[in-house]
Parts: sequence; structure tokens; C-alpha cells
Amino acid sequence: MAKDLDLEEILNFAIECAKTVGPIIKDGYYRKKNIEEKLGPADLVTEYDKKVEETIVGMIKNKYPTHEIIGEESASENIVLTKAPTWVIDPIDGTTNFISQFPYCATLIGFMVDRLPVVGVAYNPILDELFAARKGNGATKNGEKITVNDTKEVRNSLIITEFGSSRDDKRMDIVLENMKSTIMTPSRGIRALGACGPNVCCVASGQADLLFETGMHIWDICAVSIILEEAGGCVMNMDGSTPLNYLNRKYIASCTPELAREVASKLKPIEVPADGVESQD
Amino acid sequence: MAKDLDLEEILNFAIECAKTVGPIIKDGYYRKKNIEEKLGPADLVTEYDKKVEETIVGMIKNKYPTHEIIGEESASENIVLTKAPTWVIDPIDGTTNFISQFPYCATLIGFMVDRLPVVGVAYNPILDELFAARKGNGATKNGEKITVNDTKEVRNSLIITEFGSSRDDKRMDIVLENMKSTIMTPSRGIRALGACGPNVCCVASGQADLLFETGMHIWDICAVSIILEEAGGCVMNMDGSTPLNYLNRKYIASCTPELAREVASKLKPIEVPADGVESQD
Repeated sequence: MAKDLDLEEILNFAIECAKTVGPIIKDGYYRKKNIEEKLGPADLVTEYDKKVEETIVGMIKNKYPTHEIIGEESASENIVLTKAPTWVIDPIDGTTNFISQFPYCATLIGFMVDRLPVVGVAYNPILDELFAARKGNGATKNGEKITVNDTKEVRNSLIITEFGSSRDDKRMDIVLENMKSTIMTPSRGIRALGACGPNVCCVASGQADLLFETGMHIWDICAVSIILEEAGGCVMNMDGSTPLNYLNRKYIASCTPELAREVASKLKPIEVPADGVESQD
Repeated sequence: MAKDLDLEEILNFAIECAKTVGPIIKDGYYRKKNIEEKLGPADLVTEYDKKVEETIVGMIKNKYPTHEIIGEESASENIVLTKAPTWVIDPIDGTTNFISQFPYCATLIGFMVDRLPVVGVAYNPILDELFAARKGNGATKNGEKITVNDTKEVRNSLIITEFGSSRDDKRMDIVLENMKSTIMTPSRGIRALGACGPNVCCVASGQADLLFETGMHIWDICAVSIILEEAGGCVMNMDGSTPLNYLNRKYIASCTPELAREVASKLKPIEVPADGVESQD
């Protein structure tokens, strides 16, 4: 099936989807919103997240009726990821930022075949930054080619990570311990923007060297992982193993494999339930 | 002496200084730089920091030859802060971000009388964001009036703080413990942009609710404190007491005093040497 896919057409369509919903997000950004808590005060959803996802899903179903779709707001609790062509959507990555008018939020649209992303788009309509990539063709930011840094050691690296949305006491202790392990190497510092997609785009475009995070979902990492890889970077599981299992919610995105492995060797594992299972089909 | 000061003229001159050095920073941002470590890999300086400070200091000495000047790159180790008219300058706040092409860096120019800031300018030439304020006249971002949020509780607040440039083991433990105290309340989350001035501007413009930090210097907080106050916010010492001692390096910048006091009640003190002393003159 993969042989019949026109990835250039699919990338252009993904960009069209992202550009279509951009004005909805930009309009909502400056308005008072209806905010619902999902799992707690750090896990929020608004009417805009739902409207954006419905719009994109509608466009995909119309254009590619046979493709699978996994979207943050409509995904089942136990995802089955198959080898079939699959769209993976985060309508607004960084919803808390979107609510707070903190400008790091983006629509993420990834496309997977054989359980690997081959097309990715991340569009931040507030900063008007469009990151895009397709397998084998490089990555761009607003049409200009981007490449990662060449940093190979934690010392002198700029690391991004997040506190996450869980407020479980023991888990937070490990999150903080892992922050300490990397910052005390010493690194140049840790940044936390509050949105996985924009974070990985920082690594892809050389603004930072590595992101590690636990607890994010496949829709947070699918699109931006292919953007990062096409910019010359790499993705790994949090223990440093490859290939990345996109459902396992333990993620390193790095400019170089050497840096990723050094960070992985310092991190204590955090137990989080997986998003679902990989199917053999 | 203060009665003779034309604060409107002083604000316009501070903006002129910031706009004069903007192109130097913007040019340097995209170039390879000579990087020197000051106290370690998280405390860096470049030729651009020095050039920007020299330029601003030269302009001030020419226009206001009798005024005092405290600048990050030329300050003595033991500052004496007097009641005299005093310019306080951070040529590039967020030097590590500047080096990493992470877009949160700004020139901060504050002006104090009687040891309190009365004029402040924060200019980020990368994002082209100019924050400005003078006592009693409100605060603006690119000419538009800004106001803080009305958040009074840590729950549902968005907090900004930083890991800081110290890599002392015990101090880092308290930094992490303080992060945990606020995030587990629970709050919506913690953000860390890596530059005190842009952080406080986020609070002043309603993108976040509060910043707390230890270890920054008077030049990191002088200009942005008056911007925050004129946007309706407040500054305190880290134990919740007022007035703020600008040399003590323990700082809360908040949208409301209620939120500041709740955060202050949760924070464990961190011992850091002061920048200098307040003189009675």
C-alpha cells in the first residue's frame, strides 16, 4: 500500500490542513475560552481544541477516506497502531499555553506508514512558524532548510524538558531528579516551554540540543520526530534504545545520538502506562 | 534632585538607547560568537554583551554626565546603591539564549531614583518586542497598554522560575524543592525561558502569573520591575516581605500580592551573597 502513496501530495495536504485551522487558533488565542480539566489543572481542553480536530479530521476523511486517524481529542484509551497509513493529530499542542496566551502552541499533523512517521507538519499560527518535513527530503521552517546542532556532550548543551501534567508525588520526584542529573553535569541549562511539539522544533532548528520527556503521547511526537530526523537529529526511547516505540511515552529527541546516549545513561526510569499497542498488521 | 528630572524625556532616551543597540544584538544573534565562561558553563559572556554595554554607557555619559551607572559587564563586585539618579543596565539579558539562538533575550535599561526604579525599558530585538514604563504612567508593549492577570491562587496559575546558573549541589536541591512546592499545589505548570527580563515581561503582559527566582542581579530586575508595577503587578522579596531590596537577589514578581504571598509561604530560603549594599545617601 505504501508504494502507492504520494508523500509530496500528502505533505502539501497536511500543510493545507494546518493553514486552514491556523485562523481558528489565532482567533481563539485572544478570546476568553471555556476551559475543562481532563486529568487535572495541568491537563486542559477548550472548545478550540475540539473544533480544530474536527476540522482536520473532516478534511482527511474527505480526501483520504481509507486512512486511519488518531487524534488527541477523539483517540480511544487503548490505541492500536497498525502498519496502515495513519494520520496522527494534536489539534493544539500546548493547550495550557494557548489558554495563557503564552505563544508556544502548535497544530501537529503527522502521517505514519509501517508505524513510522514519514510526513510531519508543526504550525504555530501565533508566531507564524511552519515546520515541515517528508522522509528523505529534509526539513524546513517557513520554507528555509533547517539543521540540528552538532553537540555531542551534555556539558555545554542546552536541554529542554518538562514537569509534565501528572501531579503524582513520587513521579514528580523522579522528574526533578532527572532534571538535576542533566543540569549538574553541568549543562548550560534547562528550558521548559510547556509544549512538546515546539520543544522538538527548537532542537530541529538548532535553538536547543536535546529534549527528554515522559508522559507525552504519540500525537505530541509523531509529526515533530520526522521533522527532527530530516533536520539531521534522532529520536530514541528514554533508556537510549532504538527504534523508538511511539506508544511508550518515554522520549528523547536529540541533535546527535552521542548526546542522546549520554543523557539516557543519566536518567532514572519513570513508570507510565503506554498509550496502546503496536499491531502486527 | 529628583524633582528636576524629566521622566518622559528619560524614558524616550532609554528607548533610543535600546533601539540603537538592537541591530548589534540582531546581527550577532545569527553569527558565530566568542564565548567566555564567567562562573561556569551556565554563566557566559560574548563580545556582543560588552559592545552593547559600552554603547549604552557612552550614550548615557554623554547625555547625563552626572548620573550613576550600574552595568552588568562593568559593575564592581560590591555595588553601593545610592539615592542618586542611577541607570541600571543588562546589555543582553539571556546571554545563553542569545548564544543558542533561543529567542528570549533582551536589553534591559532601568532608571532608579531614591533606590526605586521609575523608568524601565526591555527590548527584545529578535522578537521585536519593546516593553516600556515610567512611574505613574502605565506600561506598554510595542506602544499598546498591557495589564497583568487577576490570578490570586497558585492553583490554576502559570508559574515561571529558573534553575539558575549556580551548579552548587545543595542549592540546586532547594531550587528543585521550591519548584515542587509550587507545582504540586497543583498549579497549571512551570515554564523556564532562561532570561529574567523576558520572564517578568510575560507576567506583566498576562502570559504568565508569577515569577520567582534566586541569584539574579539588580540589572536583571530593575527595568522590568517598574514595567510590571505599572502593568498592575507587584514585586516582593522571596519571603513575601516588602519593599523589595534590589540587591538581595531573592525575587518574586507577581500579578497580584495574594498570589505572591501564597508562593512566598511555600518557598524554602536559599542563601546567596547580596550584590552589595544600600547607602543612606
